[in-house]
This record gives sequence, structure tokens and C-alpha cells, in this order.
Amino acid sequence: MVARSDDTLQTSDAGTAEQSAADLERAEALALQLEVVRGASRRLVEPLSAEDCQPQSMPDASPVKWHLAHTTWFLETFVLEPALDGFIPFHPDYRVIFNSYYQTVGAQHPRPQRGLLTRPSLEDVWRYREHVERRVADLLRGGGIDETLCDVVELGLHHEQQHQELILTDIKHLFAQSDLRVAYDGAAAAPSRQAVADLAWRTFNGGTVRIGHDGNGFAFDNETPRHRMIVEPYALATRLITNGEYLEFMRDGGYETPSLWLSDGWATIQQQGWSAPLYWSRESAGWQLFTLGGMRELRGDEPVTHISFYEADAFATWAGARLPGEAEWELAAGGQLKGGNFAESRLFHPRPASPADRRELSQMFGDVWEWTRSPYTPYPGYRPATGALGEYNGKFMANQMVLRGGSCATPRSHIRATYRNFFPPDARWQFSGLRLARDS
Amino acid sequence: MVARSDDTLQTSDAGTAEQSAADLERAEALALQLEVVRGASRRLVEPLSAEDCQPQSMPDASPVKWHLAHTTWFLETFVLEPALDGFIPFHPDYRVIFNSYYQTVGAQHPRPQRGLLTRPSLEDVWRYREHVERRVADLLRGGGIDETLCDVVELGLHHEQQHQELILTDIKHLFAQSDLRVAYDGAAAAPSRQAVADLAWRTFNGGTVRIGHDGNGFAFDNETPRHRMIVEPYALATRLITNGEYLEFMRDGGYETPSLWLSDGWATIQQQGWSAPLYWSRESAGWQLFTLGGMRELRGDEPVTHISFYEADAFATWAGARLPGEAEWELAAGGQLKGGNFAESRLFHPRPASPADRRELSQMFGDVWEWTRSPYTPYPGYRPATGALGEYNGKFMANQMVLRGGSCATPRSHIRATYRNFFPPDARWQFSGLRLARDS
Amino acid sequence: MVARSDDTLQTSDAGTAEQSAADLERAEALALQLEVVRGASRRLVEPLSAEDCQPQSMPDASPVKWHLAHTTWFLETFVLEPALDGFIPFHPDYRVIFNSYYQTVGAQHPRPQRGLLTRPSLEDVWRYREHVERRVADLLRGGGIDETLCDVVELGLHHEQQHQELILTDIKHLFAQSDLRVAYDGAAAAPSRQAVADLAWRTFNGGTVRIGHDGNGFAFDNETPRHRMIVEPYALATRLITNGEYLEFMRDGGYETPSLWLSDGWATIQQQGWSAPLYWSRESAGWQLFTLGGMRELRGDEPVTHISFYEADAFATWAGARLPGEAEWELAAGGQLKGGNFAESRLFHPRPASPADRRELSQMFGDVWEWTRSPYTPYPGYRPATGALGEYNGKFMANQMVLRGGSCATPRSHIRATYRNFFPPDARWQFSGLRLARDS
Amino acid sequence: MVARSDDTLQTSDAGTAEQSAADLERAEALALQLEVVRGASRRLVEPLSAEDCQPQSMPDASPVKWHLAHTTWFLETFVLEPALDGFIPFHPDYRVIFNSYYQTVGAQHPRPQRGLLTRPSLEDVWRYREHVERRVADLLRGGGIDETLCDVVELGLHHEQQHQELILTDIKHLFAQSDLRVAYDGAAAAPSRQAVADLAWRTFNGGTVRIGHDGNGFAFDNETPRHRMIVEPYALATRLITNGEYLEFMRDGGYETPSLWLSDGWATIQQQGWSAPLYWSRESAGWQLFTLGGMRELRGDEPVTHISFYEADAFATWAGARLPGEAEWELAAGGQLKGGNFAESRLFHPRPASPADRRELSQMFGDVWEWTRSPYTPYPGYRPATGALGEYNGKFMANQMVLRGGSCATPRSHIRATYRNFFPPDARWQFSGLRLARDS
Repeated sequence: MVARSDDTLQTSDAGTAEQSAADLERAEALALQLEVVRGASRRLVEPLSAEDCQPQSMPDASPVKWHLAHTTWFLETFVLEPALDGFIPFHPDYRVIFNSYYQTVGAQHPRPQRGLLTRPSLEDVWRYREHVERRVADLLRGGGIDETLCDVVELGLHHEQQHQELILTDIKHLFAQSDLRVAYDGAAAAPSRQAVADLAWRTFNGGTVRIGHDGNGFAFDNETPRHRMIVEPYALATRLITNGEYLEFMRDGGYETPSLWLSDGWATIQQQGWSAPLYWSRESAGWQLFTLGGMRELRGDEPVTHISFYEADAFATWAGARLPGEAEWELAAGGQLKGGNFAESRLFHPRPASPADRRELSQMFGDVWEWTRSPYTPYPGYRPATGALGEYNGKFMANQMVLRGGSCATPRSHIRATYRNFFPPDARWQFSGLRLARDS
Repeated sequence: MVARSDDTLQTSDAGTAEQSAADLERAEALALQLEVVRGASRRLVEPLSAEDCQPQSMPDASPVKWHLAHTTWFLETFVLEPALDGFIPFHPDYRVIFNSYYQTVGAQHPRPQRGLLTRPSLEDVWRYREHVERRVADLLRGGGIDETLCDVVELGLHHEQQHQELILTDIKHLFAQSDLRVAYDGAAAAPSRQAVADLAWRTFNGGTVRIGHDGNGFAFDNETPRHRMIVEPYALATRLITNGEYLEFMRDGGYETPSLWLSDGWATIQQQGWSAPLYWSRESAGWQLFTLGGMRELRGDEPVTHISFYEADAFATWAGARLPGEAEWELAAGGQLKGGNFAESRLFHPRPASPADRRELSQMFGDVWEWTRSPYTPYPGYRPATGALGEYNGKFMANQMVLRGGSCATPRSHIRATYRNFFPPDARWQFSGLRLARDS
Repeated sequence: MVARSDDTLQTSDAGTAEQSAADLERAEALALQLEVVRGASRRLVEPLSAEDCQPQSMPDASPVKWHLAHTTWFLETFVLEPALDGFIPFHPDYRVIFNSYYQTVGAQHPRPQRGLLTRPSLEDVWRYREHVERRVADLLRGGGIDETLCDVVELGLHHEQQHQELILTDIKHLFAQSDLRVAYDGAAAAPSRQAVADLAWRTFNGGTVRIGHDGNGFAFDNETPRHRMIVEPYALATRLITNGEYLEFMRDGGYETPSLWLSDGWATIQQQGWSAPLYWSRESAGWQLFTLGGMRELRGDEPVTHISFYEADAFATWAGARLPGEAEWELAAGGQLKGGNFAESRLFHPRPASPADRRELSQMFGDVWEWTRSPYTPYPGYRPATGALGEYNGKFMANQMVLRGGSCATPRSHIRATYRNFFPPDARWQFSGLRLARDS
Repeated sequence: MVARSDDTLQTSDAGTAEQSAADLERAEALALQLEVVRGASRRLVEPLSAEDCQPQSMPDASPVKWHLAHTTWFLETFVLEPALDGFIPFHPDYRVIFNSYYQTVGAQHPRPQRGLLTRPSLEDVWRYREHVERRVADLLRGGGIDETLCDVVELGLHHEQQHQELILTDIKHLFAQSDLRVAYDGAAAAPSRQAVADLAWRTFNGGTVRIGHDGNGFAFDNETPRHRMIVEPYALATRLITNGEYLEFMRDGGYETPSLWLSDGWATIQQQGWSAPLYWSRESAGWQLFTLGGMRELRGDEPVTHISFYEADAFATWAGARLPGEAEWELAAGGQLKGGNFAESRLFHPRPASPADRRELSQMFGDVWEWTRSPYTPYPGYRPATGALGEYNGKFMANQMVLRGGSCATPRSHIRATYRNFFPPDARWQFSGLRLARDS
């Protein structure tokens, strides 16, 4: 099935430049990260069969197998191909079928039909991964890689972490379609009930502030340039909104009251027939929740998640508040430790806020992505990368809203205060929730 | 994953009636057929991986795994359940997820989402098959089964043969979606070029005739009752229309000439953008054809296939002829030997007509299903079976056209002169082709 | 706005043949009919404003103004153009915008956008009608028209009558979309309550019979050729099914019982959300009905109407009966007087059966079109007309069902026992109802 | 048809407060504006027949008759109803059928079916307008109206001006659907060819600036509150982009180059099949343009219009520039005189820039709405009005982009530097164009 290329490691001219000691150290560090990140992907897929990795449950999702191959294609196309003289691809067809949306690279397999690619098999994809991984590691350790390519390797690892989160949200969506209600991991979403403190607020003065990434460490291009802006005084709720609070909104007729909703939001809930968050189902025994640990009772103290921007916005309106702007969120998060409930805890489900946190901001990182009221737009002076990688972020800057802070499915090392995630306002299959804000 | 039931073979009252020797012989013969037919399904799936058996390439198709499980569900639900005291299903959820369309039995998994059921695994489905097969065989050989249930077993085996054909057409459709153009079987569709004779006609007098099944041997309810009708004199072409003749139609502007088309047909080819049969693609090297043996050159002498009723009808109009009525076809086929190119040849592709056959009807059975101009309607006096099995055929008697004769994907023992296959007029993924007819 | 042509009446060679006395008489008779039929169209439109004649309420319907112009285009294109030397069209654009579906004639304005043609105005369309009418009348009375063209004039008048019925059903559909529930004619649908007799049956022996038009008088090509067929013994209900009987079906869960429905029918009612006939609405005061006389109470004794084939079929199944075949209907109707409730009564609504009619067939003509279980197919030996007029009927012979007998919106002179009307199985906006049949 | 109410002018308590002299002056001024604005609507409709005013050419557009009635409904509902004791509506059904989207007020006729309301007639709508107009005028001149209601009258007049622009763009869209290519006004879009100067740039320093309306004179709530923000140095092109420049983009493969497009933009042009602005058509004689004056040659010196945000953005990317942010535009426009080509000129088409304007900003007001790169979001501290009028603007703040400056179809008195128009990024039927910006 798989045509394997015999490319021996002839690095191209691009990689023959003299390397400084710092470069060598960086390359070595990247080689270690490559192992760690790629190993994390492997572990994520362990509970799944080849058949589990095959289907695509909706056009927005992708098969697990495709995620594994696409992240490999990324390294092959953007690292190996420019780095290696006489580069031969692992399999010529992979160039097309595992290209996501890089028009500059070439044709793509139609997105809604990714689940129909039964070949290559999962086993072949593991071989593809090993083949590319080994060559990238050799490049990094062989000294034959310049700073630009190091940057691309680093981007490729963060790219892989993004797909790790998608693997979790896509498999959750897939398993939710079956009457068998399969658990991805029996230990996931184990409840830790505790009394949640009443909602409290913390105020911020705002003023002329600086927003965006400062250049220390990795960031995506969409976090730059760091720039000044004026933020008016505001307050943020110290914790996320819970299922219990969301149920109050529902019981108060939230889904039947048009004045609470944006016009497009109201149209969406009518058309989709939404009357609760995704994965909630009303059973005779009360509200049940589908989680990566299977079906279980809904807990009132856990953060609400799997809601669209429209629902987050309507809840905030009902609560007499609003969603935070992304600058407000970033300003508040800047001073926070990046503790939280991430993918590494393998809970894969948001956790109740600690009552001890009442006065301080809590849950800013991890648990759930927080919808902001900011459309996803370029920062003043934004320049996308040149070449195909310029398609990574910039071309999506329309019709999407920014989310901040990472979730229980995000790797801890992937997130930072300046990180801008983005999804269309009707997307619900991510671990998305909300924190209230208000003018102060 | 799979909850296995502990049902020991307690046959229910329904099965305890005294059995005649003839009944016992019939049951024994069915037990042998059960092995043969179920074994044929197993062999069909041998070239496929578990991943190949997972996806559903379009709502009209089903995953191979689902076909294997559904045909087993049929035997479990309609044979084991009524036959066994204290029947316990193999897995309670299978009742829903492998029910195709029997509303009387209960709820069904949404048809377009069959490809999302990654559990049970293919291995579990094989266990399910073995479990049910063994119990049905025990029933047949244990004497604990009456004539009515024997009828249902027989129906279940013909039902399984229908799904064998669908396994082939559905996997062909699936593999055609991938740029890798995978072959199901490298030996399939091997060309056997030979000079095809010019089209000749054989005339029939018609008159008052009897149509429909006479009750000797198995038939589906839709083939009954046998009834009189008047058929005017007519002629049939002695062979199928070839790719070469279809190409002439195309070159003569067939797809651009509205006067050749039924109104719905013209609308369909505009909307779908059809300008050739399914699986044809125009390459620089000429027309190529996707087959179960992979991609290869189109042969002019092979029967055209994968065309819709609309295309068959337009071709016939262009040729100054028409499609046969189903009675005309049946009348002509009645005197024919049931020789032909069936699934057993493992060619899985239609074969050119033998030039020797010029004067006599050839290719009536096997090769391709022949579109007739007859809408699929009940015969006068038709009564569907009672109970859930009444849903087998009758409820589809609207908006479909009758096809006759079987194809290269049909098991030989499955077809007969009175057999009525039916598909909507825009269906193309079956091995469907055409034979011309005219008034005489 | 309107470019008027100055075509003086120079008849072309086609019309200069010597005319027999019979031909002249026929032409004179046609000239009279032309006045009568065209006058009937005018009277139908009298209650309507220019604005009422403008919109198209769904793609299947057409604006009244378009009907008036299209029927005129028909006479201009198929009579004046071949008859007149140096023919100049009334307006060159009309050739396109008022062509319905004659691909042979040329391009057409997109069907779903007929309601957007605000020009020509209704007044201009009246002028167009007068212009063409006068020239056709001159042709008929001037002796310059041969038999072939007389046939086309006759076809054009029957064509106009078909559109008269559509004017009524389309304006009813339009007015039903408005909350104002406008009455087309305040006197229409006046109730004439009377006790309806219990359902009775009349049996027929069938046998080898002749079906189709015998050539005496006008018929559409789809009624020919007259041909033999075998009809098994059967019985027909002596009257139509009433609203009261249909309500019983509804109360018995008819719309919630899948086993009563054809598979496509069940899918249709789910998708469309149908739970009653079109134009019924359940108010606090009980079931209300929208009629051409406005909104009023539903009467149990009136024939049910505005139901699809699927609903008629499901009702028949529920009632333990079936729909008649079109031959069964024609055979029974052959001996009937063509009395009934037609458009001329200006009731525009079906009337209860007379209790006196209990034993005899009643309501065969007029009141409502009766769904048969016969798909609309060509009769054996059918040949469509040559040229563009061949598109009149033949190309619609797929995916439609035959209805028989005419309705309260059909002109009396338009209908006959052999008349085959046809609509897709989900069409409801015509005056369609049902009569039960059964084997006997 | 129309039930006329007999409400005599009993002003309710809400209106009996003591009126200051200033209030009386304002009310008198509003009474004059009422006459002027309502008279302008009347004049706009003069070239149209009742039939022209009936259809709705797409769901986003509305019938002219509906615009006339809805703006009247607005005054009746938000001014007369609260102001008058014992208020009786002109017609109870109008409350529903002429309500656009005010959920708080009650039910609405389905938006895509506005063109099906043939009743009330246009004549009745004129009577409705006169009835309401007279009562509002009486209120204003009778002293029985407080400041709050004066505010609503003023809002109602600006609301009517918005619909005047929509009347023009909707009738243009309607007439473009017909093969007759009707001119709304034969004198419209008269060409005034002149040499257009090369594109020049004017730079702005930015800094900490104030944006939004300062409270002097009327503004919509979405223009408030005035607030500080930081704007980086930038430059604006001194004139609009022309058809000639847009043709260069097209000839350079603009519509075939995915890297120029936002991802959603590329998907949109594929799906819609766009390869030129709306209303352009390529004829043998070159590019033709449909205008409110009918069909005519495309002029290279005129501003390009009827393009979507996606097309404007792709052009800017191709040109190595970007679209302005709305603050950048407002800052630049603040110092400009509001001269320009508005609806009052009755050209109804954008005019070439004067070559004399080369160095100075020109065409900032009028001609075409300028797409900005700013999503339509609430200003910091934004509060929608309370009650139903809170639905006027706020609920549309998602998935839309801001446009600035007014167009050739905007009344001059309607526009100002702070005015924020908004449309979805794929909207093309407004007079929308673009001006380039860049960082400086």
C-alpha cells in the first residue's frame, strides 16, 4: 500500500550554514520536545481502535487518523522538504490527502470526506509518523538545521498540540453519535463535588495598556505585534459560570426569550432546535451529561461547557452582565500563574472552582475556553508569515470569535496569556464556556 | 464491549409442532445453505481491513460492517426471537443500531450516520455473526422449527445475498472517493476484449400472457401473484448496450440535448453536473474507468454500467428505441438458461457479449441489471406479508423503477426470471445498464 | 414598455391549401370556442388586482399574470408564427419570459422567479392577449388555416383551460400565505350541509377491456393509443372520502403510524411536519378551513381535498382498502354522465355527495381530482407529437401519479373519462382527494 | 379591505407634560422634517407601478410597498400608540405583517414571504401612510408630545431614510432579475467621463483619539458612547478604487488566486460562482453594467461598487494594502465637508473622482459605502435603548462588517462622520465599494 521513499539525509544548502552554540542548544531542546509532544499524541490514541480513528462525525471534525497524519505531513512539508536535498515524500498521495487548507501547497482532499480514507491504515500512519519523526530528529541532532527551520519545527510542535485537543473533542463528538455511549477513558470526568462559592467580582483599572506577545518564547503570528490600547475600567467574575447557574437561565426561559439573544443567535437556536448545551440530555432521572468518561449525571458545581458564543452572550445578557473583551481578559490573566486543569491531568472535563478562590481570579487557565466578545481580527500592524505558512492564521480572520485561556483538553505547555483561540459563533463541540464581565 | 447473552436453546411453543419428514429435509437443506451463504459473505470481506469496513460513503450506501451485522440482526430478530423461549438478544443496543427500516420492530439509528458506529468492532460483529449463525443452525438441525420459520430463514438467506451485492457496490463507491484509487481485488475486472457483434433484434408476439412467480421455489412477495396481462408485439435487442455505443451518444451531444431527456432527468444531470456514467474519468490518455480491480482503460466492447434510469432512457430515445417493460423482459427471459457472469466468477465487472450470440438473446442474466421502463408498483392482488416483514418490499412501491436480470455482483442462486429489483431513477452506484426494446 | 409589432396578416404557405367545407366549419367553431375560453379566463381574473396577479407563492405555482401571458405565448408561438409570413412577435422578450418548459423553442426565464417580472404590467398582458386573440380569430375566420393548425388551436384552448384551473389553485395558495386570509370570491365555498350516506361499494367484473381515447373529439396525446388490457374484478366506493372520515383517520393516529405509509410518504410527512391536509388549521373553535371564499369552519360531509398521494394511500391502507388503478377508474367512468360540480358553478369547492346517490357511483366527475395508484407512464405504443409540442406531456412521465375525473376548478368541457392528470406524489395544492377501491 | 380606525386625537398622559418653548420649537421643526422626509419617499416611488412595488427579489430585500408600510408602522407603533389615549391601530393585522424584527412588539410575517402580501394594495398603503402621518403631525403641532416621543419621531425619520436607500437598492436588484432590464429612471447613472488621477495617499498621525458621536444632533445608539482609543499612524488613499483598477485585479487572476482571499471569502466565491462584481455582465461588446438607468457600458473611471467585503479585502491584499479600520476612517472624515454625490442628485450611481482632488481626500461621503476591516461590535460602554427600540441596532452586532460614508442612494441629511452602517461580509446589493489604507 505505502510507497516508502529512500531519502537518505542529504541536507540541502539551506541547512549548511554555520551553527552557533545557542542554535545547537535550541535544536537539541527541540529534539527533546519533539519526543515529548509526539509521544503525547501516541498516548492520547492508546484507548482507541483503528476503527475508532476512522470516521469523521461532522464536516468541522476530522478522523483521529487524519489528525495523526496531517501533523506529520506538516513537518514533512514545511521542515523536511526545504531541509533535505533530493527530498522524496514518504508517499506522493499524502501530499494531497493530508493537506488541510494550504492552497499554496496544492490540492486537498475534500474536507467533509476525510472519514472515507480507509487507506492508509492506522498502522501505515504510525509508520509514516515514525519515518518523519526520525528524520526531523536526525536533522535537529545532526546540526544541519538553521534558525528558520527551527522556528518551523517549533511551530509544528505547537500545531501538533492544537490537534491533540481536536483529537479529544472530535472523538467525544463521534462517540456521542452512537447509542452505545462509549467512554473514551473510564477514569475521565470523575466528579469532585464541592460547594462552589457565590459569584464574586474583581475590578481592574484599565488605562493605556500593552496587549499581545512580547517576543519572549513561542507565539503564533496572530498574537503579534504587541501594541498599545485603551481599556476602560472593568470587572471580571472570579470564576467560571457553572452548570447550576446555566440551569437557572434555562428554567427562567432563557432559550425562549428573543430579547436576550443576538439576532443570528436566535435564528440559530430556532433552526438547530437547541434548548440546552451540547451533550446534555434530559432523562427521567434528571439531566445527564455525555463526557469522555461516558454518560453520567450533570453536576451543578462544574463549569458549563459546550456552549456556543451565542449562548454565552445570551446568558451574560440575562445575568445583567456581558462577556469580556479579549484585552480585558489578557490584562487580567497577565499576572496569573498558569495553574489549572489541563490535558495532563487526564480528567478531560472541567472541574468546579475551589471555594477558597472566592476573592481571587480562578480558573483563568484550563477547564474551559472562555468566549470573549471580541471578533477575531488582526492586531494593528499584523503581518502574516510569508509563503504557505502565512495561511496558518490570517485567512481565518472573519466570522470568528476569540476564546481565551485553554481547557481541560489543552496541553499545559501550549497555552499562555496572549494566546488567541478562535471559532465561529455557533461552534459548540469545543470545551467552551464563559466568565462574566461588566463595566466598572 | 459486547454483552453476550446466555440464551440456551429453549425453543418456544411456536417451534414444538410435530415435524414431517419433508419439513426435516427442508430444514436440513436450509442449514447447508446457511453455511454456504454466510460463508460467501465472509469470503467477500476477506480483502478488506476493519477500517475499510467502517465508513459510509453516502447516505444510500452502508458500511460493510453494518451489512454484516444487519443481516445477522435479521435472523436474530425474525428467526431466533420468535423461535426461542426466553430469548435474550446478543446485545440489546444492536436491536436499534442494526435495524434498517423496520418501524414495526422499533427505533433505528439514523441512516446517514451508520459509518459513525465504531463500536461494535468488526471482530465483535464476527462474534455476533457466529453466535446467531450457530443458534439458527442448531434450530434447523434440532428439529425445533416449523414451516413458517423455515420460510423466514430462507428469506433471511436471500436477504443476505442482496446485501452481498450491496457490499460490493458500496465498497466500490467508497474506494472511488479516495485519490489512492484502491483495488478491492487485483484480479477483478480483468479485460477480455473481443469483437462484439452488431446490435440485432429478436421479436416476440406477446398476447395474453402470465407474469409473476408461479410458487415453485423461493420468491419475494413483490413477484406475486402470478397474473394475466396483455403484451403487444415487441422486439428486444439481443445484447446489452456497450461503452462504445454509449460514447457515440455522448459524442453526439447526448448530455447537451434536452429533447432526449425526461424533464426530471434533464434537471438531474444539470444539478449533478453529469456528463458521463459514474466512475468514468477523462484523462489525457483517454477515458479511464474505476473498477473493483482499480483504475484502468475504458473498453468499448464491455456493457455500459453505472448509469441512471434517466441516462438509460435518454440513450434509448437517442437510438430511436425505448426501454423494455418489465413484462416484456420477463416473457423473453422465461425461456432462457440462467447462464451468465455472476458474483461467483469473481470478475465483478460486466463482460462483452460473445459474438456467437448475435441472433439469440444473450446477457439476460448477470453482467448488469437492466433498467426497464416500468415503475415499481404492486401486481394486481398483491398482499404484503403480515407483521414487520410486510415492510420488506411493499412500502417502497413509489418513485422507483424496476430493474431485471441480476449483475456481475449478484450471486447466481439469487436471481430468476421473475425477480424485480428496484431503485430510484437517479441511482447510479449499482451495476445498472440497459438493453433496447421497440414495438414490433 | 411594450414594443408592438406591425405584423399584417400575411398567411404563410403553410396556410394556403384549399380548405374543405368541413374544415371551414371546424375553423368557425374554433373561433367561437376561442372567444368562450379566453372570455372565461378574463372572468376568472376579475376579482383580482394587478398586485394579486404578480406574486409566485412557491416554485410549483405561477403568477396569475404569467398564466395569462403564457397561454397567449402558446398561441402566438405554435399558431401565429407558423401561419403568418413575415411573422413578427408582439415583443421579442416575451418569447423567453413566457416560455414555460419548451426547450425546443429556446431559453426560459428561471421558473422560480416568475413572480419577479413586474413588467410587462397586467394591462400590457391584456393588450398582448387581445393582439394575439384577434390575429388567431382572423386566421380562423379568414380561411387561411389548415387542419394541422386547427389542431394546434384546439390544443391551445385546452391548454388555456388547464391554466384556468391553475389560476384558481395558485391564487388560493397565495392568499393562504397571508395573515389577512383574503377571499377570492365571497360567494365561493358556500356550505350546503346534508347528511352523507354511509360508504357503499359497486363491483365491476373487469376482464379484457379497452382503455384510452377512441379518437372521437379532442384528447391529449397521453390518452392514446386506445389499447387492450386485463382488469381483475374490483369494487369502487360509490362516493368520495369525506372530511369526517379523514378526521377519524387522524384521530386514530394516522399521521403517527408508520406502518400505514409508503416509505417516501413517511419521510415526507416527517420532513414537512404534516399532520392534516393543506389549508386545515386547528383553532380553539375547532378545525377551520381556508377556501376560495375565505376562512370558515370545516364541514365533515364535504369531500376531503388538498391531500397528497401519500396521504390518500395511507388513508386507504388504514381503511383496509386501496386506491383505484387508472384503468379501473376509467372503466367505471365510461358509462357515467359527466355531471358534477365544475368551475362553471363558481363554487370552487367540493360539495357533499347526495344521499340519494348511495347505490350508484357519484362524484366521478368534478369536485376533486381522484388520486389513482397508477404511476404516470406511456400507454403501449404511445408516440409524443413531433417538434416542440412533443414536450407537452411525454417528458413528464416519471415520478408522477395519475389523477382522474376533474375538480370543482376544472371547466366542464375540459374533462372526459379518458383524461389523465398527473402530479408528483407530494403535491397538495391542487383540489385532490380520493375514492376507495378494493379487489372483489 | 382596510378597516380604518376612528381614533380621535386623545393624547395620553404620557404627552400632557408641560412643554418648554424649546420643546415646542423642536416639535415644530420635526413636523417640517416629517413632511420633507415622507415626501422624499413618495417621490422615490413615483416611477414605479403597483406591480413594481409588490415582489421581493430575495430574502434580504423587501418589496417597495413593504418599505412604505413598515416605516409607517414604526411611527404608529412607537409614537402614536404610546402617545394616544385609547389608541386604535389603523388595521390590526398590520401590526404583524409590517413588523420587521421587533420580537418585543410581537409576531412577524415570515421575512422571505413579504412579497406575497398583495393586500393591502399600494393604494391602501398610501392611505395608511397619510393616516399615520397626519396624526403624527397633529401630535407634533398640538403640543401634546414630550421630549422622549420627539426623540422617537426623530428616530423614525432617520429610520425612513434608511429604508429610502433600501427602496433603491431593492428595486435595482429586482429589475436586474428580468430579461427586460428595466430602467428605474432613464436619467439615472448618466456617465460623466473624466480622467481620474493616479491613486495618492494621505497620512495621519493617529495617537490617542476620540471616536463616536459627541451628542450634538441626532445619532443612532450604536455610534455611542464617544470613547478614547489609540490609533497607530496610517495612510488613506485619497479616492475610491475604480472599475478600471478592479478590472486589473480581475485580469491578474484575482478571482482564481486563493492566497488573496480570506478563507470564508474563497469558499463564498466558489459556491456562488462569482468572478466579477454584482450587475456586471460580459457581452461581446465588452463589460456591461446594470444601473438604475438601465443597462450600459462599464466606465473605468467610476468607483467600483456592488462588491462584498470579501472582494474588497482580496483587492486590498492584491494591491499590497488593506482596508481601513472604522476609527481610521472616522478620524479622517471628521475634518471633511460633507459634500458628495447623494440621493438628492438623483444620479443613483457613483461618480468618478475629480482629478483636482488628487492630493486631498475626496469621495469620503456619498458615492459608495466604504467597507472597513472592522467587525460591527459595541463601543466600550454601549447601552442599547430600553424596550423594543433596543432591538434597533444592538442585536445585529455579530457576523457583520462596518461600512462608512454613505452612498449615491443615501439622503445627504442622513449621513455623518460617526455613522456606522453594517452588512454581512457577503452582501453585494448595496452600493458598497472600497478605499485603500496602509500602515504608515
